[in-house]
Amino acid sequence: MAASNGNEHIVLKMVHKHPLDQLSSEEVNIARQAVLDARKATILFRNIYTAEPPKAKLIKFLDAEHAGTLTSGTPRPPRQARVQYDVVFEDRSHEYMESVIDIASGTEVDHRQVDKNLQQSLTVDEFREFNEVCVKSEIFKNAIKELSLDEKFEIAIDPWPYGGPDPGEVTPRYTQGLCFAKLRNGNPDSNHYGFPLPIIPVMDTYKKEIIRIDRLATGGTEDGLEYSTRAKKVLEHCRPAEYVPELLDTPLRTDLKPLNVLQPAGPSFAVSDESLVEWQKWRFRVGFTPRECAVLYDVHYDGRSVLYRLSLSEMTVPYGDPRPPFQRKQAFDFGDAGAGRSANNLALGCDCLGVIKYIDAMLVDSEGRPSVSKNVVCIHEQDNGIGWKHTNFRTNRAVVTRSRELVVQFIITLANYEYIFAYKFDQAGGITVETRATGIVSVVNIDPGKVSPYGNVVSPGALAQNHQHIFAVRIDPAIDGYANTIFTEESLPIPMNPKTNPFGNGYKVVRKPITKSASIHASPFTNLTIKMANSNKINPVSQRPVAYKFIPSPSQLILADPESIVAKRAAFAHHHVWVTKYKDGELFAAGEFTNQSQKEVGGVADAAARNEDVENEDVVVWNVFGLTHNPRVEDWPVMPVEIHQLHLRPADFFDKNPALDVPSNKNLGSVEVGRETNGTCCHAN
Amino acid sequence: MAASNGNEHIVLKMVHKHPLDQLSSEEVNIARQAVLDARKATILFRNIYTAEPPKAKLIKFLDAEHAGTLTSGTPRPPRQARVQYDVVFEDRSHEYMESVIDIASGTEVDHRQVDKNLQQSLTVDEFREFNEVCVKSEIFKNAIKELSLDEKFEIAIDPWPYGGPDPGEVTPRYTQGLCFAKLRNGNPDSNHYGFPLPIIPVMDTYKKEIIRIDRLATGGTEDGLEYSTRAKKVLEHCRPAEYVPELLDTPLRTDLKPLNVLQPAGPSFAVSDESLVEWQKWRFRVGFTPRECAVLYDVHYDGRSVLYRLSLSEMTVPYGDPRPPFQRKQAFDFGDAGAGRSANNLALGCDCLGVIKYIDAMLVDSEGRPSVSKNVVCIHEQDNGIGWKHTNFRTNRAVVTRSRELVVQFIITLANYEYIFAYKFDQAGGITVETRATGIVSVVNIDPGKVSPYGNVVSPGALAQNHQHIFAVRIDPAIDGYANTIFTEESLPIPMNPKTNPFGNGYKVVRKPITKSASIHASPFTNLTIKMANSNKINPVSQRPVAYKFIPSPSQLILADPESIVAKRAAFAHHHVWVTKYKDGELFAAGEFTNQSQKEVGGVADAAARNEDVENEDVVVWNVFGLTHNPRVEDWPVMPVEIHQLHLRPADFFDKNPALDVPSNKNLGSVEVGRETNGTCCHAN
Repeated sequence: MAASNGNEHIVLKMVHKHPLDQLSSEEVNIARQAVLDARKATILFRNIYTAEPPKAKLIKFLDAEHAGTLTSGTPRPPRQARVQYDVVFEDRSHEYMESVIDIASGTEVDHRQVDKNLQQSLTVDEFREFNEVCVKSEIFKNAIKELSLDEKFEIAIDPWPYGGPDPGEVTPRYTQGLCFAKLRNGNPDSNHYGFPLPIIPVMDTYKKEIIRIDRLATGGTEDGLEYSTRAKKVLEHCRPAEYVPELLDTPLRTDLKPLNVLQPAGPSFAVSDESLVEWQKWRFRVGFTPRECAVLYDVHYDGRSVLYRLSLSEMTVPYGDPRPPFQRKQAFDFGDAGAGRSANNLALGCDCLGVIKYIDAMLVDSEGRPSVSKNVVCIHEQDNGIGWKHTNFRTNRAVVTRSRELVVQFIITLANYEYIFAYKFDQAGGITVETRATGIVSVVNIDPGKVSPYGNVVSPGALAQNHQHIFAVRIDPAIDGYANTIFTEESLPIPMNPKTNPFGNGYKVVRKPITKSASIHASPFTNLTIKMANSNKINPVSQRPVAYKFIPSPSQLILADPESIVAKRAAFAHHHVWVTKYKDGELFAAGEFTNQSQKEVGGVADAAARNEDVENEDVVVWNVFGLTHNPRVEDWPVMPVEIHQLHLRPADFFDKNPALDVPSNKNLGSVEVGRETNGTCCHAN
Repeated sequence: MAASNGNEHIVLKMVHKHPLDQLSSEEVNIARQAVLDARKATILFRNIYTAEPPKAKLIKFLDAEHAGTLTSGTPRPPRQARVQYDVVFEDRSHEYMESVIDIASGTEVDHRQVDKNLQQSLTVDEFREFNEVCVKSEIFKNAIKELSLDEKFEIAIDPWPYGGPDPGEVTPRYTQGLCFAKLRNGNPDSNHYGFPLPIIPVMDTYKKEIIRIDRLATGGTEDGLEYSTRAKKVLEHCRPAEYVPELLDTPLRTDLKPLNVLQPAGPSFAVSDESLVEWQKWRFRVGFTPRECAVLYDVHYDGRSVLYRLSLSEMTVPYGDPRPPFQRKQAFDFGDAGAGRSANNLALGCDCLGVIKYIDAMLVDSEGRPSVSKNVVCIHEQDNGIGWKHTNFRTNRAVVTRSRELVVQFIITLANYEYIFAYKFDQAGGITVETRATGIVSVVNIDPGKVSPYGNVVSPGALAQNHQHIFAVRIDPAIDGYANTIFTEESLPIPMNPKTNPFGNGYKVVRKPITKSASIHASPFTNLTIKMANSNKINPVSQRPVAYKFIPSPSQLILADPESIVAKRAAFAHHHVWVTKYKDGELFAAGEFTNQSQKEVGGVADAAARNEDVENEDVVVWNVFGLTHNPRVEDWPVMPVEIHQLHLRPADFFDKNPALDVPSNKNLGSVEVGRETNGTCCHAN
């Protein structure tokens, strides 16, 4: 039973780890060695991370944990690692495999070999190699030469997933590159995106060979969809698009005075046992996966279960420019890249204010060695204005509380673009999933003086193409237990009539349970609300089932033609809500393999199509929302955040406002203009 | 030319006031005296406030102000007061009138006598009188006696506007009262709303006489819509609903540590010249009216005009319980009560954090004497998370700025309910109009053990009725000038076809100008965006007209039957966007007189029906949004805020992200958990 490396103390440490904790470096090494031992081949490691225990087993452990009956003798789900890797053959071909390694014994307990047509996400190494291969490639060098660039420029290439192959196209693993020119001005952070080049090299990823150069049309509409020869000086009308402060040609504003968030008594939250977060009456685990980044598990409020698991599941970003090959500009940032592996290393005083707790991520390099990414998740508190208020008009007595939030945040960079994701907990039992889109919009070259229906010219020569961002959040509810029922609730008019609506002011609220796995469209004009309820538990005050609710944002769904590859790859993006029966490992809205997919396989649409019973069952709810982003000039060179929030709110879960016991103390740090004194600086409230 | 009271110095002070400033107490007194002199009758004063100059005149003055050519010789719009009052006759009948008083000469320059069927908003005096009359009324005393209340209770009455009279009902001025019992526990802030009584007394307001008692049905559905005799002990199953901390039966949470917002160098904004606010590149005037509370005028960014006027215009709250007389529970909180007159006196450290500037409101009492309401508007800065960020994945260099906001906030109390309104300015040229609904939901008595389709039992015996809140924001744009055009912009699919969309990923963006005054429905599934543009000014980068945009929230519109009085009184609530030609004084979405109205007169629907040219004209945009509020138990006894935001954002107004010059300094006040030191407390960034 000892680990294969014989380190008894590792096994000892291990048994104290929570089943949802990230792997330690020792555990990574055990898993790596087990794969090397089992395969006896050249291995390219992609990911090694905690294999989530089957829900049935984990629940038993969690129940004991919450009951306070956990002892060293309590049966634990075996601690296991999931290892994702390629077996690399001498002819440079790869075979993608996955293994599950039992850490305690250091042995492989499961493995599978994946169809060669399914492509795993891009790695940092593949990014690097793409650049190396490109600059050595004769056809790439010739393509660049044709552009007759000025000597002040060097070439900068952003590797991208290849997107969906065209109908009938059989593709090995490919990577494509969006090409730009970068000013040789001695500053490595000079922004190359202001100088887009009208070529896209395509590489056979494993052969490490540029197989062709796609030429890009640079006209507006008048030139048609296809590339045609045009003026050689493609960058002459372009302009720098600097955003790093030292390269700006105008000074920074100087009239912004400091605003500090100070917590003289420290934070109100505690992180213990590696992954356990406790704040106010909330208690949950923060896990991490290479694909989803921060994942929340086992979310409880005041000892009552609310969610089993909450995660960002997938996102797709299709571009709406119909000119080939832009149909292949369609990123699935979780499946093609991995949010965990793309996560920023956050910095104090930049990404949040106040007292911050950072969490590191355990990743691996291509040799399977542990590689810690520092500060990828941050946890902090913030003030969100007034929480509740009432003034008694008879006495003029006001009782007002502030709304404090706990924020679990991470930020990912995908080449030009950034997303800021935050799970926010409040004191009234609410959980908000916030996305902020920022970064640099994707641009392509456009001829001087032209405009285009496919996007907006945000800088001379730079056309920011219209596109959509469509996200999927996976909600695995556990409303006072795991058997839950999803209801739709709509508010509908009642025609005026003497019997039931004599004056016409009445309206009705219609509730319907979802009995079979299903998809649901948002319906704002009927105030469609999704209720995740436990019909076995009735609120003693209202006599209705305890529930959490959300109103699905009626954002625009995917615009691509339903018969297009772009649309078929993202079946999840065709409905706002999906309700499916829980199945271990079914975590990804667009399926496990999105890279170079021609259609969504094993995603939420397939899960819903099983037509399973979901009433009073272990059920999963997926919320899809997005943003049709037709860029503004103001989005250049770095766009101000576009914010979306999904609000999960208790609905007859509690027997009163759960924030009723929040103190309504005056904040003593606040001062009136003209009456500021230094003395106020360090007061506590 | 001297004021009638001969005070030359007042006239001198006056000429230095900005045309949009509130009246001084001296000016109020001049206006009051002028009305008394002109009418020579018993006057009940309702409001005395600055009469906004006609736009044509004011624009000339503002143009000179912005051009810096303002001198003491510049012609100014005459400073005038609007006085709203009743002439009270010996038979207790009232005649409602309005006068416009020229302050410099102290003379009436205009007046009108208003149709007796039109009712002005309720006053504080009418509130007080309602209570006095009720408790003396024999029929009210009898009605209470029938309820056989326990001695531990006293009676608490919330006066309400009468709502819309029934079809054909001719009503003098009425006030109705929602009645509750309050525990005699020595605490004047004990919450009476937990003990609703099933009677509504109706008062003839001027005769000061209770004319009838409406009896309320207390069943669920099974008892039908009408009142029927039932158990006498209507409160026996009710429970206290305390929210003031000293009356809570559970202790306040103690684990919330202080979070202070400190601005050691003071705020970044300045308020000068009484009403002028300057912050970052924003510059605007904060005005005040008794009906709208804070109004923003002449909003400029970096010297360029954005808005002429921005205000909350109206709100209606119809209740969806069809049982008579609940069709008359329909408040128009701006027209029936007045947001300015209902505004809370804000307190330091309670309603916002940091360094706060407060603005007082000049109101009048029933004798027309100046009565200053302190701190009704507050101005402060807050941090709203990351403003923009990009990480260069090649160098790992992150540039991240925080988004600072300037908030102009006010809070109104309407009997049981609170609204928090905020105008928020950001550094990227955006303006957000935020509403937060809080306070105590309106409840009626329900029999023990029953539930109801008309609402939710939030406390035993207390049925919180389903209702809607529908708001109207009035936007008077001035996008680089006053001649503006409103465009709709929709993102629409293009069927896959070889010529224009060979791979099916393309979509089109369709823009249409609004040429005639009109109403528009929100259309989220086509991403309908409203652009307020100046077609005479083209963005040099994108070649598109400079514009501001917003996406109208697709919230549910009024559910009442279109033929009902409830719906007819609120014609504005039938569409999400209205586009009308500017007309002086046309400020109120539901018309000037909402109290006891049977239909909307002179509101936005009538304005749109004029079918005027609005293309490249002085145009006004009205945005209607709302909240269908089917209460949760968690909304009791005081509800956590429900937040709605309307985002006005530049769209090709600027030639780049206007927040590009925001410094990306590290905030030195932030610390990592476990590394807190006292020394960080007073650092500036």
